[in-house]
Amino acid sequence: MTTRFELVARSGTARAGVLHTRRGNVATPAFMPVGTQASVKALDAAEAEGTRARMVIMNTYHLWLRPGPEVVAELGGLHEMSRWPHVIATDSGGFQAFSLAERTRVTEEGVEFSSHLDGARRLLSPEESMRVQGQLGSDVAMQLDICPKGGAPREVVLEAIARTTRWGRRCLDARTPGQALFAIVQGGTDVELRLAHLRELEALPFDGLALGGFSVGEPPEQMHRALAEVAPRMDPERIHYLMGVGTPADLVRAIGAGIDLFDCVMPTRNARNGQAFVPGGKVVIKNARYRTDPRVLDPTCPCPACAGGYSRGYLRHLYVAGEILVHRLLSLHNLYHYQRLVAEARRAILEGRYDAWAEDQLASRATE
Amino acid sequence: MTTRFELVARSGTARAGVLHTRRGNVATPAFMPVGTQASVKALDAAEAEGTRARMVIMNTYHLWLRPGPEVVAELGGLHEMSRWPHVIATDSGGFQAFSLAERTRVTEEGVEFSSHLDGARRLLSPEESMRVQGQLGSDVAMQLDICPKGGAPREVVLEAIARTTRWGRRCLDARTPGQALFAIVQGGTDVELRLAHLRELEALPFDGLALGGFSVGEPPEQMHRALAEVAPRMDPERIHYLMGVGTPADLVRAIGAGIDLFDCVMPTRNARNGQAFVPGGKVVIKNARYRTDPRVLDPTCPCPACAGGYSRGYLRHLYVAGEILVHRLLSLHNLYHYQRLVAEARRAILEGRYDAWAEDQLASRATE
Repeated sequence: MTTRFELVARSGTARAGVLHTRRGNVATPAFMPVGTQASVKALDAAEAEGTRARMVIMNTYHLWLRPGPEVVAELGGLHEMSRWPHVIATDSGGFQAFSLAERTRVTEEGVEFSSHLDGARRLLSPEESMRVQGQLGSDVAMQLDICPKGGAPREVVLEAIARTTRWGRRCLDARTPGQALFAIVQGGTDVELRLAHLRELEALPFDGLALGGFSVGEPPEQMHRALAEVAPRMDPERIHYLMGVGTPADLVRAIGAGIDLFDCVMPTRNARNGQAFVPGGKVVIKNARYRTDPRVLDPTCPCPACAGGYSRGYLRHLYVAGEILVHRLLSLHNLYHYQRLVAEARRAILEGRYDAWAEDQLASRATE
Repeated sequence: MTTRFELVARSGTARAGVLHTRRGNVATPAFMPVGTQASVKALDAAEAEGTRARMVIMNTYHLWLRPGPEVVAELGGLHEMSRWPHVIATDSGGFQAFSLAERTRVTEEGVEFSSHLDGARRLLSPEESMRVQGQLGSDVAMQLDICPKGGAPREVVLEAIARTTRWGRRCLDARTPGQALFAIVQGGTDVELRLAHLRELEALPFDGLALGGFSVGEPPEQMHRALAEVAPRMDPERIHYLMGVGTPADLVRAIGAGIDLFDCVMPTRNARNGQAFVPGGKVVIKNARYRTDPRVLDPTCPCPACAGGYSRGYLRHLYVAGEILVHRLLSLHNLYHYQRLVAEARRAILEGRYDAWAEDQLASRATE
């Protein structure tokens, strides 16, 4: 197994570690920017690297439909194509087949759906997901899973768990040599179901353990209550990845529970909606109060927008005028903000003061 | 006069020089990227600087309406606001008042129009244009002029010339101390009218001489025929600026006639439409032929897209998928292409071989 997790330090239940992969190491806690279509939106690879991210996640569903895994493979795989030199994870495609595609039908074989691009009928089976992720050439693949909506009835969650385990075995059988494969634990906010599913999947030779099915409509408090019970009980030898989460405060709390790895569209999506994360809250850049504000977003931030001296007044002008430069500057700023957050969290863990650091962070971020 | 043109060398009628300004020097022939709304579209200031551009032009009409010259002044002026550290020119606003605004009415006083943003009635007089450009804080202002459409009747052109001269005098009277002011020569493609107007304006203490009213619908051949007669007869002590032109081949021919300075939206606008300038022609990136093309746009190009190793196949994917990264990469590429072109032209002039160089360029660009 070329991919393994090395635990470096604990502070309470929070963990600092290193994910070793065939493409280099990732210090954890870590946050993965999302590059849905093989591009972290608005940024080139050098800029994404500049944020200090060392692992990104790209979307199998999107890349499967366009440009297609054969084209990606002909262009040398995702790394060569996108020029991202560090670790790439890909999701299984299942989540988008449910959230984006039309006329989705699930059978034991897989997920049948119509492409949101051209309506073509497709079957996403565990084997097809492994084949596509293998062609894309990511370093870490995710198993195909069933992710029920937040608040789904118990029998739906039970069925999702059972099928996710069966599909997990099929993914293991069909995996691409050399590519790491992570399991996805379901169970909603029910701690008992989560732990039961965790035990099932931990018994299988997955390289990492992800928690799926959070941040899918349930109240955040329910997620954090479940995380506080589940994350500390996950196999300490493997990486703990919380999928699709979340706000900076969510990260601080989840790291405290024992999560090592995150991904979320929030920093880049909010940027495109004109929201910048700053110490103590958010700047909504279109607000008239910033019209002549000469201050940068955050004077302590090393990002190109802040270090480059771009004022809130100018950023507001760019946003109101529809200039795409503002998407890029705010995306960079928010990603730097997230990367600094996980870097500081790691330092606090290494120094054995995570809880105090987290308390300060949560108090200062109460307005988020 | 802080702004002056220094003639360094001639090769035939082509000129190499230096424009000295309060904000530093610009080697000529020079091409100005267009930053309509105080941003060279998709690029930040450091990237625009990386193209080797040392002078940009921004649009008075747009910035007057939004965010307004008072806001720009409160944010420290265009340089401080946009972070562009080199020379900034602004146009007079007249061209856009004709091409973008509604219900435009011209009197001797100025151009009355309704804002394309909110319909508000505005008067752009020579004095108001000078006031706004002064508040914006550009290093080079342009006089307010009347620019007839290509092929306008002789009496319309004559009237435009007469009024442009009168407005030029009013601009000189209302100019902001320290800000350079360039005249704009009209006259369409009629060489006699052009030369007559040129003599009128040359008699006035303008810091530079621009040719307006080209590339406004007339056949390119007519423009080049007129340029070949007019440009060599322009006051050699002042800079010769051809406004709003053009393709790389247009630049090569106009430089040969004696033009020193250009601006055009073409490199950035074509980029956003998926067109990249390469040696020998254009790449239309959405074409299916580039689907799996592993080559960069131009292996000799030092731009972030080419030097960064972004393949045509990846660029095509980004374009088809609607990823804004492609706008930026193609904008950078095209601006590097233009800057390399004028730098090579300058070298050819300094080495006294402009005509041979230009002939090679035009032969290789015949497909543009």
